Amino acid sequence: MAKIAVLGHGVVGSGVVELCEKNKESIQKRAGQPIKVKHILDLREFPELNYADKFTKDFNVILNDDEVSVVVEVMGGINPAYDFVKASLQKGKNVVTSNKELVAAKGAKLLEIAKQNNVNFLFEASVGGGIPIIRPLHQCLAANQIDEIAGILNGTTNFILTKMVKEQMSFDTALQIAQELGYAERNPAADVEGHDACRKICILASLAYGKHVYPENVHTEGITDITLEDVAYAESWGGAIKLIGRAKMIEDGKLVAMVSPAFIHRESQLASIDDVFNGILVRGDATGDVVFYGKGAGKLPTASAVVADVIDATKATKTSESLSWIDSNENFVIDYTLSSVAFYIRCTAENMEEAKSAISEQFGGVEFLSRMDAPQNVLAFVTKVMVEKDVEQKLQNLKNTLQVISKIRVLDY
Amino acid sequence: MAKIAVLGHGVVGSGVVELCEKNKESIQKRAGQPIKVKHILDLREFPELNYADKFTKDFNVILNDDEVSVVVEVMGGINPAYDFVKASLQKGKNVVTSNKELVAAKGAKLLEIAKQNNVNFLFEASVGGGIPIIRPLHQCLAANQIDEIAGILNGTTNFILTKMVKEQMSFDTALQIAQELGYAERNPAADVEGHDACRKICILASLAYGKHVYPENVHTEGITDITLEDVAYAESWGGAIKLIGRAKMIEDGKLVAMVSPAFIHRESQLASIDDVFNGILVRGDATGDVVFYGKGAGKLPTASAVVADVIDATKATKTSESLSWIDSNENFVIDYTLSSVAFYIRCTAENMEEAKSAISEQFGGVEFLSRMDAPQNVLAFVTKVMVEKDVEQKLQNLKNTLQVISKIRVLDY
Repeated sequence: MAKIAVLGHGVVGSGVVELCEKNKESIQKRAGQPIKVKHILDLREFPELNYADKFTKDFNVILNDDEVSVVVEVMGGINPAYDFVKASLQKGKNVVTSNKELVAAKGAKLLEIAKQNNVNFLFEASVGGGIPIIRPLHQCLAANQIDEIAGILNGTTNFILTKMVKEQMSFDTALQIAQELGYAERNPAADVEGHDACRKICILASLAYGKHVYPENVHTEGITDITLEDVAYAESWGGAIKLIGRAKMIEDGKLVAMVSPAFIHRESQLASIDDVFNGILVRGDATGDVVFYGKGAGKLPTASAVVADVIDATKATKTSESLSWIDSNENFVIDYTLSSVAFYIRCTAENMEEAKSAISEQFGGVEFLSRMDAPQNVLAFVTKVMVEKDVEQKLQNLKNTLQVISKIRVLDY
Repeated sequence: MAKIAVLGHGVVGSGVVELCEKNKESIQKRAGQPIKVKHILDLREFPELNYADKFTKDFNVILNDDEVSVVVEVMGGINPAYDFVKASLQKGKNVVTSNKELVAAKGAKLLEIAKQNNVNFLFEASVGGGIPIIRPLHQCLAANQIDEIAGILNGTTNFILTKMVKEQMSFDTALQIAQELGYAERNPAADVEGHDACRKICILASLAYGKHVYPENVHTEGITDITLEDVAYAESWGGAIKLIGRAKMIEDGKLVAMVSPAFIHRESQLASIDDVFNGILVRGDATGDVVFYGKGAGKLPTASAVVADVIDATKATKTSESLSWIDSNENFVIDYTLSSVAFYIRCTAENMEEAKSAISEQFGGVEFLSRMDAPQNVLAFVTKVMVEKDVEQKLQNLKNTLQVISKIRVLDY
């Protein structure tokens, strides 16, 4: 029998305890032995639970219990999660976490400590909730060079954008509904400003490319400025607006990595991923595009990913070779303004015909978009793929002719 | 260094050799050691290849070479593949295969032999080509009860159906194009009659439910009878026709398993999987729906899945506990006529009003469909979900009122 401890009895933690009980037979079959929750760390008390006797407020009870071979960290945040995880690994315990903030900030360090102690640090649940993505990326796609990863990595923003696209709701109204349904926090900044998606693309890129990609090096834009006008233009262009986290290897081992809203064509496998669902596209040199789709959050989906890692941890006899990356002081993410991409640009102009011909001249040909009920003085167009910096310069050159209202990347997945 | 042998230098076999060379650095990194192809078994000769010296026509050269720790079987068919795989496992060698016919017919036996010899029999490439599905199913979704699996498992038929839906091509014309493009064999029966999809759903169901599901127990219908009229009605209903392989656990450990064309709603994640792509939906009790999408066949995608298994085989120290199922003489797939499903039915009738009211009376309410340019004497409708046998009986009761032309299941994924 394998005994585990769960740090944090919140949404995910209680889901882990529930799932270990509910599916104990199939879990035992897959693991080759029963798995039992021995301790639960939480500062709160839950006297009404039939497993109230498992709770402790003292982490040392867990750390010093040699029977505990796997510690599940589902507290969230960096402190004290980092210290608890580090201490557990150093004591020779495997650690499983769903904490994307921790993995994105400290992954390389914790993987190194795990290796030194011949145990595993596993984090399938940190990206995509219940969608298998970490394990497929390092195991199933191991024979591939990963050219690119792009995903809808945050369910809250995808829910809001879906409401805007399908029901013509404003951002504020959609956010309010997301909050009422419990999809968005009262302080929604981490979601709507893109930080959550940024942490997840950092984890995926670190794993795919072997060196830690830090969130502070990844340009991140949220969805707070997206308007229904932009949504309507995206539709007239032939697609929808999604918040996309992406990472792409370019020459010299450099990486383009970014989180931003983007126009995605209707035919794309990412375009039909709606509501709170997540979808992640991995472009391998051998497999071509592979897409993983499912619920990116929620109690049982996330708990299911945690428990799958627990099963793996109980079976492993040494540190995984493939689930690893190294730390690096060097920032190998390039300045995003040097990367190439197409842009949708919406602007106002006094003289429409003059503006159109000036735009065409500056950009060397663009696709002008139209939509019903657009104000007379509004113009929208999509550029060719070009270096971002050059787009900025060209818009600067046009500053006497037009005023830019919004600017959204156009991606081709 | 791990040394491997490849049985069969066809499309997949040559892809395995190519990939082992092309991505050798990343493969070595993931595997923790270099992986080298030592022997290739083929009756043909390839003197022009720069690795011509690796070829042998004698399987015993491979079997008796103790340096070879992994045998890759990519010959296809049951004979002599079964004998070669069995002998390899008995000699203590790991075996990796892409051969769905072999796994569907002999999986339980070969998994048992692998276990007796403490080696692994791996077959990620047998379903979904380069899409990771076998490993996610038994590892990542290990904490779930799998309620249901449904997939577009055959790229050839999906290509043909896509041509029919998007370009109004007839089945025969679309098949001819598929053959010209190399997507369909000269004898396309295994694809268009559903046998290939049947083998794949058998493999997935065996793994998900732990007992071998044999193809001969799974009712299988192909797409040869699908017409453009049916395609048009599917569109007017709000979806498309796809060839779906599915397996669902019901009470008493019994299984509903079937391959058939089906109406799939436009909003479904399976509806937007077009051309030669495959998509597999797994419905877990904890994760909800998870969908895996990508190229279901082709040289490098399939080779990439094979090589990922090779990497796993070289790292394993014992037989996988979770990648297994048992043999069973008992057929636990229920008679398909006893399962419940909705049907689309297209028929002719002499007196339309009389027929409509007779249909409504028999079926207790149906959804009548209409389409442009339908002949005056044609009626199409969708029933409620009911036992298949009862649908047959009701149509029998109506035999003096209408003549059934086609009958296609309507699925809700």
